[in-house]
Amino acid sequence: MDGHRIAMLGTGLIGDFYTMTLHGQRSRDRVRVVYSRSEARGTAFRERWGIEESTADMAAAINHPDTDVVVVALPNFLHEEVVGMVARAGKAVLCTKPLGRNAEEARRMLAVVEDAGVFAGYLEDLCYTPKTLKAIASARAGAIGDVTWVRSRETHPGPRSAWFWDGRLTGGGAIIDLGCHCIEIIRNFVGKGNRPVDVLCHTDTLVHPIADEDNAIALIRFESGAVGQFEVSWTFRGGMDLRDEVAGTHGTIWLNHFLRTGFELFSAPGAGGGSGYVAEKAETSAGWLFPVGDEVSELGYVDMFSDMFRALDGGGQPQETFYDGYVVNAIMDAAYRSAAANAWAPVEFDWRGETTPRIASVPEQFEGQIVIKREILPDGRHKLILKDPASGDFSDRVVAEG
Amino acid sequence: MDGHRIAMLGTGLIGDFYTMTLHGQRSRDRVRVVYSRSEARGTAFRERWGIEESTADMAAAINHPDTDVVVVALPNFLHEEVVGMVARAGKAVLCTKPLGRNAEEARRMLAVVEDAGVFAGYLEDLCYTPKTLKAIASARAGAIGDVTWVRSRETHPGPRSAWFWDGRLTGGGAIIDLGCHCIEIIRNFVGKGNRPVDVLCHTDTLVHPIADEDNAIALIRFESGAVGQFEVSWTFRGGMDLRDEVAGTHGTIWLNHFLRTGFELFSAPGAGGGSGYVAEKAETSAGWLFPVGDEVSELGYVDMFSDMFRALDGGGQPQETFYDGYVVNAIMDAAYRSAAANAWAPVEFDWRGETTPRIASVPEQFEGQIVIKREILPDGRHKLILKDPASGDFSDRVVAEG
Amino acid sequence: MDGHRIAMLGTGLIGDFYTMTLHGQRSRDRVRVVYSRSEARGTAFRERWGIEESTADMAAAINHPDTDVVVVALPNFLHEEVVGMVARAGKAVLCTKPLGRNAEEARRMLAVVEDAGVFAGYLEDLCYTPKTLKAIASARAGAIGDVTWVRSRETHPGPRSAWFWDGRLTGGGAIIDLGCHCIEIIRNFVGKGNRPVDVLCHTDTLVHPIADEDNAIALIRFESGAVGQFEVSWTFRGGMDLRDEVAGTHGTIWLNHFLRTGFELFSAPGAGGGSGYVAEKAETSAGWLFPVGDEVSELGYVDMFSDMFRALDGGGQPQETFYDGYVVNAIMDAAYRSAAANAWAPVEFDWRGETTPRIASVPEQFEGQIVIKREILPDGRHKLILKDPASGDFSDRVVAEG
Amino acid sequence: MDGHRIAMLGTGLIGDFYTMTLHGQRSRDRVRVVYSRSEARGTAFRERWGIEESTADMAAAINHPDTDVVVVALPNFLHEEVVGMVARAGKAVLCTKPLGRNAEEARRMLAVVEDAGVFAGYLEDLCYTPKTLKAIASARAGAIGDVTWVRSRETHPGPRSAWFWDGRLTGGGAIIDLGCHCIEIIRNFVGKGNRPVDVLCHTDTLVHPIADEDNAIALIRFESGAVGQFEVSWTFRGGMDLRDEVAGTHGTIWLNHFLRTGFELFSAPGAGGGSGYVAEKAETSAGWLFPVGDEVSELGYVDMFSDMFRALDGGGQPQETFYDGYVVNAIMDAAYRSAAANAWAPVEFDWRGETTPRIASVPEQFEGQIVIKREILPDGRHKLILKDPASGDFSDRVVAEG
Repeated sequence: MDGHRIAMLGTGLIGDFYTMTLHGQRSRDRVRVVYSRSEARGTAFRERWGIEESTADMAAAINHPDTDVVVVALPNFLHEEVVGMVARAGKAVLCTKPLGRNAEEARRMLAVVEDAGVFAGYLEDLCYTPKTLKAIASARAGAIGDVTWVRSRETHPGPRSAWFWDGRLTGGGAIIDLGCHCIEIIRNFVGKGNRPVDVLCHTDTLVHPIADEDNAIALIRFESGAVGQFEVSWTFRGGMDLRDEVAGTHGTIWLNHFLRTGFELFSAPGAGGGSGYVAEKAETSAGWLFPVGDEVSELGYVDMFSDMFRALDGGGQPQETFYDGYVVNAIMDAAYRSAAANAWAPVEFDWRGETTPRIASVPEQFEGQIVIKREILPDGRHKLILKDPASGDFSDRVVAEG
Repeated sequence: MDGHRIAMLGTGLIGDFYTMTLHGQRSRDRVRVVYSRSEARGTAFRERWGIEESTADMAAAINHPDTDVVVVALPNFLHEEVVGMVARAGKAVLCTKPLGRNAEEARRMLAVVEDAGVFAGYLEDLCYTPKTLKAIASARAGAIGDVTWVRSRETHPGPRSAWFWDGRLTGGGAIIDLGCHCIEIIRNFVGKGNRPVDVLCHTDTLVHPIADEDNAIALIRFESGAVGQFEVSWTFRGGMDLRDEVAGTHGTIWLNHFLRTGFELFSAPGAGGGSGYVAEKAETSAGWLFPVGDEVSELGYVDMFSDMFRALDGGGQPQETFYDGYVVNAIMDAAYRSAAANAWAPVEFDWRGETTPRIASVPEQFEGQIVIKREILPDGRHKLILKDPASGDFSDRVVAEG
Repeated sequence: MDGHRIAMLGTGLIGDFYTMTLHGQRSRDRVRVVYSRSEARGTAFRERWGIEESTADMAAAINHPDTDVVVVALPNFLHEEVVGMVARAGKAVLCTKPLGRNAEEARRMLAVVEDAGVFAGYLEDLCYTPKTLKAIASARAGAIGDVTWVRSRETHPGPRSAWFWDGRLTGGGAIIDLGCHCIEIIRNFVGKGNRPVDVLCHTDTLVHPIADEDNAIALIRFESGAVGQFEVSWTFRGGMDLRDEVAGTHGTIWLNHFLRTGFELFSAPGAGGGSGYVAEKAETSAGWLFPVGDEVSELGYVDMFSDMFRALDGGGQPQETFYDGYVVNAIMDAAYRSAAANAWAPVEFDWRGETTPRIASVPEQFEGQIVIKREILPDGRHKLILKDPASGDFSDRVVAEG
Repeated sequence: MDGHRIAMLGTGLIGDFYTMTLHGQRSRDRVRVVYSRSEARGTAFRERWGIEESTADMAAAINHPDTDVVVVALPNFLHEEVVGMVARAGKAVLCTKPLGRNAEEARRMLAVVEDAGVFAGYLEDLCYTPKTLKAIASARAGAIGDVTWVRSRETHPGPRSAWFWDGRLTGGGAIIDLGCHCIEIIRNFVGKGNRPVDVLCHTDTLVHPIADEDNAIALIRFESGAVGQFEVSWTFRGGMDLRDEVAGTHGTIWLNHFLRTGFELFSAPGAGGGSGYVAEKAETSAGWLFPVGDEVSELGYVDMFSDMFRALDGGGQPQETFYDGYVVNAIMDAAYRSAAANAWAPVEFDWRGETTPRIASVPEQFEGQIVIKREILPDGRHKLILKDPASGDFSDRVVAEG
């Protein structure tokens, strides 16, 4: 029952979250070495987390003889180069989101790990939140019928690190930062075998004096006819709003991951104590506050790494692969093209999945008419809305039981 | 302190809601005569509400000598003709939403009442819900800064009357039925003097075997740069979902009008009693249920009629006028054109408002750099994200107070 | 369709709420004269609400020839004297809560209005909130089976007027101020014909330097076996917390009247505009705020006055009578006696109701054993928990359908 | 980084939850052998969880040479005997809640492990939910000032196993089953060094035909003056209601652990798929449902075992010890005595803590008067409620800043 020994590349907020998770609870895995280009930050990180070594030499970290897994927690513009180095080192690589700055980068990263034959996992945490995992399972079990529309929303007041704001380093604005989460959540609900066909996207820069979008909304049409809708913003006020809403032919799922999870705290302004750290992107530390319980669990990090290592140990694929990351990049590319062209843009990528039939059933008939809707009345009778196929006229009828 | 004597045209669900409101609480107004093309329905309605007379003769109802106000609660395709009759009778006319089946109808209706010089009010109830009225007032008072994005959502499992499903009689599908509410809510938050410029809309027919849309989403760009987003559906499961979310530069408003208002009832399935009528469009009468308190108040009917009669008595204009109804129709027309063309469509109509400046402020400067974001740290210092205007590079800086 | 002309006694917060309601929406009632012992406050009130006259002469207000109803919105210690004056004037009297400072005062007030034969209504607004009215109707219709336990909670940071803090003037502390609401809410759910038998109460003064209780909790046993539980506090932080929770043998009702009603507003601290008045007892005007829509409607004032005038006009009794106020005072007296004695205290008063049978049913039997619980399994079978009446042993059994 | 090898005693629902947790995520611990008195249930459990051995010989399980920790997941009446066996075997013992059926049993269990010098942990999971841990930390850091009142509520429709209903085997009814959780949650918020002084409890049997209580409420007075309030029920309808509410002098904490956690699912009745297992004690599988994300995490099992093993490995004490279990039993004993006597009952036990000063501060003075309350007005001025120490009269005063 041996765990993994990990090289952690990067010492930012995401490196902290990852390491907190990897060292958390009764884990048998450990970060063995941490890399930062800054000696000082590497040392601080090493001491903060009780890691044996830190280094400012990326190659040394990757090739460290006591590690078998490399976690890439670096800015987007470094992903491709670093993943290549890990692949060449023959080690398992887990890369944070988004995979690339665009689909072409992601495609090359996918190729390099497949050519090298190394295990590769896409660290898309929000697809692994406990609520999301259970909701996906419910949807697949048929609890809401056919999925017709998935809305995923991630908004907050804007990133805390400077490089996030520089589209040259990231590949874009709020879409690249946040939309990648939403897209992959959507794909999990509509089914990963359900081909994304085209995208209609609107971007805007409403508040911050930047060149990239600080707000965006997009629709993704899938082959089944299901629609994915993502909403991202760097200008939301009040904390971090993470919500998913799934509509099906027979049901609905609403998930709130952050601001309304059953934890409410009022701390009188100027009361003294203050409430300290509330939650990621929280804007106030007094008045009504909405913390989350165990942030790394609620955000999916715990289940994500469990799945990664379970797949690595078992010789299979994790739930989120580099191919998934590539698909996400392809959809984001289409979103940017759509926003530029003010028109639906096709998703251009190598589809490895199969075909998915259109959501549809043969309409129900009643005495030669089409049943538009059936409603059960309080007295047990059924009210039917009917359409006459010849005249196109609509009528309603109450029947014993239909 | 005399009230008004009203001719109610129509005896459907909306006629019931209106009359319940007009006769409710300590009202000094009364329905004096009700019209239905069906004698039987007219009689039943008359008895249900204690009204003196019912008639199947529309002209008789409109011209009834003891009434001064006519309320039009009839299907959309009758609005234009009937409003014309009322105008010619020289009476005040209050017409249910949507005003017309399209902007051209609405424009003619607006002209006919203006030409006749009669008082005309647009019965857009959801702009008058107590929460909405207070939220609009807060937004106008500056509580959330400049409004940047307004999302209004109205979805349920589909109408209960046959004629609603027939686009020939209504002018469309879920947009005509529900989108009109959302659009006018949005206008109230972004400001009615803020010209709607163009619309990007996607419609789909995902579930019901009908020709018109059962799902739609649209973006409306206003002159200030603010974006309105409406989402409508006839395929939502779980009741009637009415939510509005307003984003501002300095705050956020979330309104939930129906499914989560602080009234929760669990009634064990098969427990016997059952819970009877729960709320409009409720889908179940056992398990966890979410009634509303006073439905005609929560849905805005009470404040709507108060505003109408206050304006009528005072010689002014109500909050919602026929011109507003015309603007709403024009935006819906643009939405349908956009959906057909898969492109942004301009809103084509006679604008009576003024111009609104673009949301924008001169970016804050700090030592020659542009301040992208300012965050207050727990220790009281300020963290700035800065952009160098020359190089375009981003950096962060922690300062005493900025 | 004439309305009432009212003498309003008192110009405090409650007088404002009452007048806002009486003059609200399309009301046909008006305040004709207002009394305040302060000329200045009377004049300000008169101007604020557009009232014809104000006076500092109580008798003049009560005997004003153009009024038919007197509303008593004065501090508790004045109720008995003033109600006597109104009774002698032969006018309808509506008195704010609590009726008396104790049951003896209330009993005398009841006697005086009954002896005079005048209409008397007890202004217990929180029994009239739209949610409460609908929930009571659902409970009576059997939606939750037999009511077993009713919890009513009213807490806030303490009153805003000085006299409220003086037990000599009010009759007590948080119980007198807030408990009277809770008790009458409880009575409406368990049934007004259900005799309150005894009370167990604990009071404490935890925060404010006062002689009376700033926190209390009590249990009220009713003849049916149902238990009422009220919780009151003048030390709650975060606003005004008004919640009722009703447990029945087959269901549950949860009502939240104030802090979580589907209206959420985030206003960034220091944003400028501020959000102004939020709601009664709100503690902050920035950060996350929870306003209510229409406060006088949500707090029950609108339905309360409608019921009062409907009863007055119709010759019947309102939902809340002076007898109800007397019962409430009797229960509060018992609560204070219980808290002093640290023991259950009987409710001492003249009971005008009938007897109510004990909640109970003959236990279900299965093959000679007592069925303790029956649960439906996912596969449709029933799991029974059984008790052997001879041995007292428990066992479980899964059966086809029981 | 070796983990622990565990003997699991018991194969009921709690054994399943414990094993799911111990084998969960990246855990380095494993159940090595499972004991059930039923060979068949032992085998099924072994196969369900991939455990090497099962046995119907309790001593063999306890003394298994490859284990170092024994987890007692057996009915209450077996705890004392089994803990004695483990202590004599010299192994670490973790015992489920409640520790004993009464304080005397618990006291002997505490003595036996202390005499044997073995590590002993009290498996009180609900004190370890992520929300609870973070809320306790916030309270200790001063976010809500001094804790004055803690309400903890655990209610559901009744246990699923027959032995739970038999007071001879458990020691009581809903208090023994559920109250133990609430009491220890309360102690964590008021401080474990805060001596519980006495208890006022009311029990009732309202619905189920049993001898023990199916409903209870109790108040616990602590030395600081803080009050703990627990509410338990086996007759709640609608699922499992787990809520904690903490009042402090400067703030409030509200925790909802189960029914309202941001996961909402509507599944149309008769839709086909159904939603399968929803959550512990869920009553329906259609309509609006409220699942939880990761049940063993949300209920505290994950953090509980982490803390136990961290303490065991580190040579310290876990958060929840046998002494804590003993205190909980002593409080429950006092609750039963109070309910029988209808009076406050002292908590009788060996107190190992220190003394805690009374919550209190010297009242603020203003110009020789006592400040009862200070409120900040919208214009920044302060409104003071003052009490004259000589006359006892109250007045209010608005001042520049106080």
